[in-house]
Amino acid sequence: MSALKFEVTSQDGSARAGLLHTPHGAVQTPVFAPVGTQATVKALTPQQLEELGATLILANSYHLHLRPGDKLIADLGGLHQFMSWNHPILTDSGGFQVFSLAKRRHVDADGVTFQSHLDGSERRFTPESVIEIQENLGADIIMSLDECPQPYDREYNQAALQRTHAWAERSLAAKSRSDQALFGIVQGGVFPDLREQSAAFIASLDFPGIAIGGLSVGETPEEMHTMIETVNAVLPEDRPRYLMGVGAPNDLVECVLRGVDMFDCVLPTRMARNHTALTHLGRLNLRNSPFADDRRPIDDTCTCYTCRTFSRAYLRHLCVAKEMLAATLLSIHNVHSLTTLVGDLRQAISEARLQDFADEFLADYRKHRPPEI
Amino acid sequence: MSALKFEVTSQDGSARAGLLHTPHGAVQTPVFAPVGTQATVKALTPQQLEELGATLILANSYHLHLRPGDKLIADLGGLHQFMSWNHPILTDSGGFQVFSLAKRRHVDADGVTFQSHLDGSERRFTPESVIEIQENLGADIIMSLDECPQPYDREYNQAALQRTHAWAERSLAAKSRSDQALFGIVQGGVFPDLREQSAAFIASLDFPGIAIGGLSVGETPEEMHTMIETVNAVLPEDRPRYLMGVGAPNDLVECVLRGVDMFDCVLPTRMARNHTALTHLGRLNLRNSPFADDRRPIDDTCTCYTCRTFSRAYLRHLCVAKEMLAATLLSIHNVHSLTTLVGDLRQAISEARLQDFADEFLADYRKHRPPEI
Repeated sequence: MSALKFEVTSQDGSARAGLLHTPHGAVQTPVFAPVGTQATVKALTPQQLEELGATLILANSYHLHLRPGDKLIADLGGLHQFMSWNHPILTDSGGFQVFSLAKRRHVDADGVTFQSHLDGSERRFTPESVIEIQENLGADIIMSLDECPQPYDREYNQAALQRTHAWAERSLAAKSRSDQALFGIVQGGVFPDLREQSAAFIASLDFPGIAIGGLSVGETPEEMHTMIETVNAVLPEDRPRYLMGVGAPNDLVECVLRGVDMFDCVLPTRMARNHTALTHLGRLNLRNSPFADDRRPIDDTCTCYTCRTFSRAYLRHLCVAKEMLAATLLSIHNVHSLTTLVGDLRQAISEARLQDFADEFLADYRKHRPPEI
Repeated sequence: MSALKFEVTSQDGSARAGLLHTPHGAVQTPVFAPVGTQATVKALTPQQLEELGATLILANSYHLHLRPGDKLIADLGGLHQFMSWNHPILTDSGGFQVFSLAKRRHVDADGVTFQSHLDGSERRFTPESVIEIQENLGADIIMSLDECPQPYDREYNQAALQRTHAWAERSLAAKSRSDQALFGIVQGGVFPDLREQSAAFIASLDFPGIAIGGLSVGETPEEMHTMIETVNAVLPEDRPRYLMGVGAPNDLVECVLRGVDMFDCVLPTRMARNHTALTHLGRLNLRNSPFADDRRPIDDTCTCYTCRTFSRAYLRHLCVAKEMLAATLLSIHNVHSLTTLVGDLRQAISEARLQDFADEFLADYRKHRPPEI
């Protein structure tokens, strides 16, 4: 009896298209989830996100636990009501932020102690406490606590994997809400045998979905692809596979080809704040001076509000003049690019022409030429 | 033969409701124009502005001349196309910014020399050059160069007034586009005789609309009201009267009562970026801690997207967490408050009950109590 039902509607090679049924509606997969770290996808209103075709968004437990506090959000009716997003939400466990953002952390078998990056206060996460935090937040999909180590230290990865596996079992035992789906996380660095072992163990537990963690953290693309192939060869076909923290267009294509169903990443909105637009011909830095008198939209094949309405010249002016609207308009374009891309991938899978679509997309994208200006 | 036609549709005491016909459509008056200094009303898309009922917006010639350059905007099709605002636009002359923002300025009979606040480069504005800048920008309503002195120095105000009047005549002579309406500006500090003299002189010239400048710059509310009454007693009834740089809700009410038709101000969007919401019961600083668990909207009588969708608790979280969405959502509320207020004033004028409306509004507003929390 899970809060989540996953339905594979078509397959094409290793790739799948499907439907993820949650208490807040169904999500078509493959899906890209924009990140709303502090209960807001930066610079976008929920109305704009809906218009962009976003269906699932991610929020960060670490940040919301520290500010404004998960108990306060629970008192206010939960995260959906708090941020006015009446569609599916996924929260992470906070583990990744402890290992990347927090100060002075210490891991032991039982959990991890760290200092808040906001005020230096000492905090502790255990598998049980992060379930409690996520039950307070009330997302549709929640994650078990894991440890995400540097990918190349085999000995450390082996030890961390034992903790991550023990924490996965404890997370399942701690979970009490029936309207949330808890995912387990596969780790193992760049080591195929550790990844296989982890995938088999996590798949043996009663998780309705499985995440692949610890990738896109410094390894090569080839290593990432090999790890995904290794893990997905072991994972059962009837459960959704979620690749955490990946969102570059070429990565979405490569990983959907290899059987991934779900993605999240700060990339489209962070790049927008850094004045970079994602296009099917690579990235455009809108601050560049040749755009100063460029009447064309960012991408003349794009149908987003920004491309329908504004020239590169205007967008460059907003970037140079440090106007907030630059972040909003580029976030609209970048999120639209990724929601459109996963839609195109779904379509290609359902028409059994994914490999052709991918070959063409990646050939264009790899040219990575500075677009004609 | 003017690009602008003004039609008074009803009168109530000194107040008027009307229609301002421009090449980009008609504007109902009294009207409040949000300010888009750098060709963007900060944190809002044109689509959001339309939904908020904004009809006329103001852009700053000084800023756009310096960056990205008025000639570039002309090459790109003019300001309407550049910023994608297909409704009326008003540009100021840049004079006010020279006297408030620029470094090391020197005024002479012919114009004003100053240093750009952006890069220190030496620049010069004359009545003719600011007409050229505004013809490049292409707004529907443009302003003659004026000097806005400190309001209490009589001798300086007298000398400045002579320059402003001479510049008004030169502006009219310099104007060449027939699709723009040029307004003259009344100055004169806090001195009724200077204000009368200025109103009579400016009204004697062939301006289709007249602005009242040099108010809301440090004088008392009583002085401001007296100056408006003095000037409006002289100005002809058939031309629109534009009070520059005024936008506090109580000021809109007081000045519409005294016969003003048009307003602009950065107040709603600047306050939004400072986390302050305008309500009919005064101002709310959303950072205040009592709002942390407040489930109510900013103003439960307001119908804007922000008030329909979000709690004070969520807005406070966005402010405290320094999220850009705070500025967007508070700008939506604040601009909506002012467009709604001028709509209510229009309605009250057309129903000949403005004084009652104003008495009630100002009594509520003056209580200025910290709203119940």
